[in-house]
Amino acid sequence: MQPQIEVGVLGATGMVGQHFVKFLQGHPWFKLTWVGASDRSAGKKYREATAWRLAGQMPAEVAELTVSDCKPGNAPKLVFSATDASVATEIEQAFANAGHTVVSNSRNHRMDADVPLLVPELNADHLGILPAQRAKRGWSGAIVTNPNCSTIVLTMALGPLKQFGIQRVLVTTMQAISGAGYPGVPSMDITANVVPYIGGEEEKMQIETQKILGDFTGGELRALEAKVSAHCNRVPVVDGHLAATSVEFSSKVKAEDLIAAFDTFTAMPQQLNLPSAPKRPVIYMPAADRPQPRRDAERENGMACFVGRVRECPVFDFKFIALGHNTVRGAAGAAVLNAELMQAQGLL
Amino acid sequence: MQPQIEVGVLGATGMVGQHFVKFLQGHPWFKLTWVGASDRSAGKKYREATAWRLAGQMPAEVAELTVSDCKPGNAPKLVFSATDASVATEIEQAFANAGHTVVSNSRNHRMDADVPLLVPELNADHLGILPAQRAKRGWSGAIVTNPNCSTIVLTMALGPLKQFGIQRVLVTTMQAISGAGYPGVPSMDITANVVPYIGGEEEKMQIETQKILGDFTGGELRALEAKVSAHCNRVPVVDGHLAATSVEFSSKVKAEDLIAAFDTFTAMPQQLNLPSAPKRPVIYMPAADRPQPRRDAERENGMACFVGRVRECPVFDFKFIALGHNTVRGAAGAAVLNAELMQAQGLL
Amino acid sequence: MQPQIEVGVLGATGMVGQHFVKFLQGHPWFKLTWVGASDRSAGKKYREATAWRLAGQMPAEVAELTVSDCKPGNAPKLVFSATDASVATEIEQAFANAGHTVVSNSRNHRMDADVPLLVPELNADHLGILPAQRAKRGWSGAIVTNPNCSTIVLTMALGPLKQFGIQRVLVTTMQAISGAGYPGVPSMDITANVVPYIGGEEEKMQIETQKILGDFTGGELRALEAKVSAHCNRVPVVDGHLAATSVEFSSKVKAEDLIAAFDTFTAMPQQLNLPSAPKRPVIYMPAADRPQPRRDAERENGMACFVGRVRECPVFDFKFIALGHNTVRGAAGAAVLNAELMQAQGLL
Amino acid sequence: MQPQIEVGVLGATGMVGQHFVKFLQGHPWFKLTWVGASDRSAGKKYREATAWRLAGQMPAEVAELTVSDCKPGNAPKLVFSATDASVATEIEQAFANAGHTVVSNSRNHRMDADVPLLVPELNADHLGILPAQRAKRGWSGAIVTNPNCSTIVLTMALGPLKQFGIQRVLVTTMQAISGAGYPGVPSMDITANVVPYIGGEEEKMQIETQKILGDFTGGELRALEAKVSAHCNRVPVVDGHLAATSVEFSSKVKAEDLIAAFDTFTAMPQQLNLPSAPKRPVIYMPAADRPQPRRDAERENGMACFVGRVRECPVFDFKFIALGHNTVRGAAGAAVLNAELMQAQGLL
Repeated sequence: MQPQIEVGVLGATGMVGQHFVKFLQGHPWFKLTWVGASDRSAGKKYREATAWRLAGQMPAEVAELTVSDCKPGNAPKLVFSATDASVATEIEQAFANAGHTVVSNSRNHRMDADVPLLVPELNADHLGILPAQRAKRGWSGAIVTNPNCSTIVLTMALGPLKQFGIQRVLVTTMQAISGAGYPGVPSMDITANVVPYIGGEEEKMQIETQKILGDFTGGELRALEAKVSAHCNRVPVVDGHLAATSVEFSSKVKAEDLIAAFDTFTAMPQQLNLPSAPKRPVIYMPAADRPQPRRDAERENGMACFVGRVRECPVFDFKFIALGHNTVRGAAGAAVLNAELMQAQGLL
Repeated sequence: MQPQIEVGVLGATGMVGQHFVKFLQGHPWFKLTWVGASDRSAGKKYREATAWRLAGQMPAEVAELTVSDCKPGNAPKLVFSATDASVATEIEQAFANAGHTVVSNSRNHRMDADVPLLVPELNADHLGILPAQRAKRGWSGAIVTNPNCSTIVLTMALGPLKQFGIQRVLVTTMQAISGAGYPGVPSMDITANVVPYIGGEEEKMQIETQKILGDFTGGELRALEAKVSAHCNRVPVVDGHLAATSVEFSSKVKAEDLIAAFDTFTAMPQQLNLPSAPKRPVIYMPAADRPQPRRDAERENGMACFVGRVRECPVFDFKFIALGHNTVRGAAGAAVLNAELMQAQGLL
Repeated sequence: MQPQIEVGVLGATGMVGQHFVKFLQGHPWFKLTWVGASDRSAGKKYREATAWRLAGQMPAEVAELTVSDCKPGNAPKLVFSATDASVATEIEQAFANAGHTVVSNSRNHRMDADVPLLVPELNADHLGILPAQRAKRGWSGAIVTNPNCSTIVLTMALGPLKQFGIQRVLVTTMQAISGAGYPGVPSMDITANVVPYIGGEEEKMQIETQKILGDFTGGELRALEAKVSAHCNRVPVVDGHLAATSVEFSSKVKAEDLIAAFDTFTAMPQQLNLPSAPKRPVIYMPAADRPQPRRDAERENGMACFVGRVRECPVFDFKFIALGHNTVRGAAGAAVLNAELMQAQGLL
Repeated sequence: MQPQIEVGVLGATGMVGQHFVKFLQGHPWFKLTWVGASDRSAGKKYREATAWRLAGQMPAEVAELTVSDCKPGNAPKLVFSATDASVATEIEQAFANAGHTVVSNSRNHRMDADVPLLVPELNADHLGILPAQRAKRGWSGAIVTNPNCSTIVLTMALGPLKQFGIQRVLVTTMQAISGAGYPGVPSMDITANVVPYIGGEEEKMQIETQKILGDFTGGELRALEAKVSAHCNRVPVVDGHLAATSVEFSSKVKAEDLIAAFDTFTAMPQQLNLPSAPKRPVIYMPAADRPQPRRDAERENGMACFVGRVRECPVFDFKFIALGHNTVRGAAGAAVLNAELMQAQGLL
C-alpha cells in the first residue's frame, strides 16, 4: 500500500524535526511532502538548510523538498510540530486556526485544559476534548500534544498499574544526552559525570503525569489526584531515559500482580494495529540487571517501555525501574502514533 | 610530629588495601609498618605482591615491607581490615581475639548487635558498646566497622536532619565504577550505559542507615525506626556516589532550616580536630546543578559530604541530592577517621 | 529460498561464538544446526550453556540446540571456528583432518604458509593454496582464516590502493572495547581514558597486512614487500575500530585518484552478489570529520570499510582515516563472507 | 617569600583565562592583580563577570578584582594573554607597543619570524630574537608565545632526541575534550565516539614543531628541517593529550639510547630551579601500557611529559607514546614557565 496522507513537519531542520523526518521515512500511511522552518531556511532545499545529525543518511526524497516558512497556506492538513518552545505557541495556533491538525511535540500547549496530552495506550479517550477545544478557540483545526520525553517513560510504566489505585509516586530519572538536542550538553559537563539537574524537567514530569493518567469526564480533562515527585538527572548515555520508581497503591497487590499487569497490558493502538504501535507497549524483563539504556532502548523500534526489578519497597508498596527511548517514543514516534490513532478514529 | 602509632593493614594487596596504603601515607599519627595478605603473597615484598592500580606511585616506604599472612602475632595492635568478605569473619575475629583493635571496612560484622557501625560525626557514642562486645565474645581486642560506600553518603546528609524527626527516606543512588573494585565492572556493561542493579547494595543501605542513625541506650544499639528504601544504580563515573533523596520529617521544617542544618553541622571529629576530619562534614552547594561527582567528589580531600538542590518534595517534605567520595570517605578514609576517634578518646 | 547448507559453530557459547550465532540468523544459504563448546557446556541446551551478552534476543531456533563437545563426528561439514586461541590449533586441525571445512576467526593458523588469510574483496585467489594445504597435511578438509579485527580495517582501505604500489604504511589504531570480548577491558581502565597498548595487536596488524595484500603465485602465498608499522590503542568506544593511516606509494598519484579508487572499488563478492557482501566494500565519506565509530560503524550492516579525510602527508604521500566494525566485518561477518565465497566457487 | 611581581591576565574570564587564574594561585614570584576582558565584563567584579568552570573554588583574592577592558594603561608590565584568536593580534600588539611584556597562549603570533615560540626546556635561546622583534616593530615591550597544546607534548618528547638527528616524524594524537574549551565539544559528538578531526590542529603541530626544535642563529630563528606529519583526533578523555609517534633519525641509535635520553634530560628551567619547572621534564614509564591520560596526566603538577613504549618501528627507526596535560603544560603552565624563565634571565 502506498502512503496516501500528505503530512508536513514544522521546525523540520532542527534536531527534533530531523527525528520526525527519519521516523516518517517509509511510513505506510503518511507521506512527508512539506517541511517548514524559519525564514532563514525558507526557500532552500531541505538538504541545504539542514545540518543532518542523525545516524544514517538523510532520506533522499526529503532532501530535495523546498523548505517553506512556518505559515499555514500550502501546508498539508496534518502537520507535526517540532518547533522550538520560543515560537511554538504562535505558530501552532496559527495552523490550528487555519484548519490544520497540529500534532505537536512542543511543550507549549501540553497543559492547556482543552488540549489532549495524548498517549494512545493510556488516554485515547482524551481526544474527546477536541470539540470543546475547537468551540472555545474558534478553530477549524486542532492541537494535540505528546508528553515530555521523561514523562512518557514513567506514564507508560504506570498505565498498567492505574487499576491498583496509584496514590503516590517517587521517581528518579537518569536521562540520556540526546534529550537535550544539539549541541545540547557540553562534553565537559557530562563526560564521566552526572549532572543532577535538568531545567524545568521535574515540574513537567510531575504535572504531565497527573494529566495523562487522569480521566476525560465527557466535559473536561480531570487530572489524577496522585502525588508525584521527580528527581531528574543527566547521565552520560546516548539514548534512553531510565526512571527508578516507587509507587504506593490504594489496593493490596503483590509483585506478581504488577508483573502480570505489565505483561498483559494492551490498548487501543495494539487493537487497531496502528503502524507504529509496539506489539506490546510494556515489556517486563526478568533479568536482575535489566533494562539498560544502551542494550534495550532500541528494541521494538524504540516504541515500547521496558520495566524490570519489580520488588517490594520498604517505604511505599513497590519499586521498579523503567526505560524508554527518549527520541523515539519520547518525541517523534509519540507524535506519529498520536496521528495514527486520530486517523484510525476518523479524526483527521 | 612524627607518627607514633604503628598500624597494619589486613588484605593490603587488594584494591581497598591499596586505598588504605595510599590514605595512610604521611599520616601524622599512624605509621604503616605491617601489611597482611593471603598465603600466596606472604613472604614477598609488598611491591612484588601488589599490582598497584591507584593514581600516583606506591609509597616507597611501604613498597619494601614484607607481606605477612593474615594471622595475629607480629602485627601491630591496631589493624585496618580490607579483607575480602569471603574471609573477613574468621580473620577479623582471630585478630580481635588476640587483642588487636580491628578497624574494618568489610561488611561482615557491620550488622552484629555488639559491633559499632561507626561514623564519627554521627554516632561517636556507639563506641560505648565495645565493653559489651569484649565481654560477650571474650575478646581482649575489638572490632569496629564503617558503613558501605553508598550508606555513608546518605547518612552524612541525613545526620544534620535527624533533629527534625526522620520518618521516611527514599533514595536513588548513582554510583561510581570504583565502588566495584578491580577488575570490577566490565567496560562492555557500563560504557554509555547505566546498570540499574548492584547486588546486595539496596539492603545494605536500608539497614545500615537505620543502625547508624540509631541510639546507644547505654546497654544496646537501637536502630532508628525510620523507613528507608533504596534504588541503587551503577553509572559511568570514576569516583563519587550520588544519592537523590526524599525525606519525610515529623516536625514542620522549611528549606532554609535544612540548609542551615547542613551549613552549621559540626561534630566530635571537628571538635577534636582529628587529622582526617573535614573542616565541615557537610557542605551545601547553592548552585542549581551541583554537586557533581567528577567536579566535586575530590574536594576537602574526599572526606566531606556535598549536598545540593534542597527543595520541597510533592510526596514527602523535602528532596535533595548528596555526594560523597566512595573510595575515600566511603572506605579507607572512613576507617582511618574511626581509628583517629578511638585514639583521641583513649580507646586504642 | 530456504537455507540449504547446515553449518556448525565451534566455541559457540563465547562472545565471538555469539556473534556467529547472531550473524547467521536468517542467513539465506547457511542454517546453524550444530553448536560446539567445551566439555563443561556439552550436553546442555545452548540457552542454558550461554550467558548471552549481545543486543537483542538469542535466536529462538538456536536456543534449543544441544551443545556438543568440540570433536568432529556429528558436526556439519562446514564449521565456523570461534574457539579460543589456547585450544584452536588442536581443535581446528582435528576437524580439518576429519574432512570439515573450518572457516576460522581464530588467530592460530592465520600465518601458516599453506593457510589462506582471506578477505574476499582482496585476495580471493589465495584459496588456490588449499590443494597444497590438503596435500601437505593429509587432510580431506581444510582451514581458511580471516584477519584480526584491526587488520581488516587497514587492509580493506589499502586494497583499492594496491595498484599504486604501496611501499610503506604507518597506522595508528583507536580500537573499540568490544574487540576485547567479555568481560574484556575493566571499566576502571578505560572510562575517560585511553590505553595505548593491546597485547600482540601491533605484530598481528603488521604481518597479516603483508600476507593479505600479497600474491598467490600458483605455488605459494607471497607477502607484499611493503613495510608496515602499527601503534594500537584502546579507546572508550563500543564498536568500530579507527585506523589513522599514512601511505607511501611507488607511483605518483593525486588525492582524487585515491578517492576514485575507493569509490569505484568492487570485487568478487560484489560480482558474485554474495549474501553478506556490502554493495560497496569501501565507502569514502567526504565530510571533514567522518567516519566516526558511533555514527558510522553500523552502516551497511557493519560489512563495509569507511574512509575519510584523504589528504597529502608531509612525510609520506597521503594520509586518511579508515573505520570498520570490529565484531561484524572484523570477526563473524568476515568468516561468513569467506564461507559464502567458497560456496559460490564450489569449494565447500 | 612573598610574590613581588604584579601580573595581569588578558582574556581572564574565558576558559584559558581561568586556567591562568588557577595556575597563578599561590605563585611564589607572580601576584595576579589585574584582569582584563571584553567591554561586556569591564567594570564588574571578576566573580560577577566569570562563569567559573574549573574544579575547585575561584581564588578569593581574584574574585574581588575589578575587570578592566583589554587596553594598556593601568595593567602591570607583565601580562599573560588568554585572549581569543579573533582579537589577540590587535590586543597583544597594543600591549607590546605600550611597553608590556605579553606572554601569550594565543596562536596569532606564534609563527611570526621575530616572535619566540618558547619551550624553556628546548629553546631558551630563542629569546635572543627579542631585540630584533623590538627593533623591527618599534616596541618597548615584547610578545613571547607558547605552543599549541598538542605540539607541546610532541616537542617535549622529541627534545631529548634532537641529538640523534630527527629526520621524519609521523604522529597521531588522541586529544582530550578540555582542549576545546567550553562549551567546546558537544557530548552528542564525543560520547563513546572518536572525532577524527580538529580544525587547524594538524597544520599547527607540523609547523610549530619545526620552529620550536629549530635554532637561533644569532640573527634569526631557523626551523628544523625535519618533516612532520600529524593526524589529530578527539577522544572522550577529560584532560591529557596522547601522541603516538614514529621517528626517523640520521644516526644509528638503540632503544636504550632513547630511554636514557629521556631519563637524563634536564635543561635550563631545572638548572634555574624555576618555580613551575618539573623536576624532570620528561619521565619515561616502563610499564607496558603507560602513560595513560586519566591516570598520569596530572602527575608532576601536570608540567612534565610522560613517555612510554619505546620500541623499534618497522617503517622508521623507533616508535613511542607521549602524554602531556593539555590545559596545564599545554596552556597556562607553559606561559607561566616562559615568564619565569624571562624573569630569571632578567628579561622582564
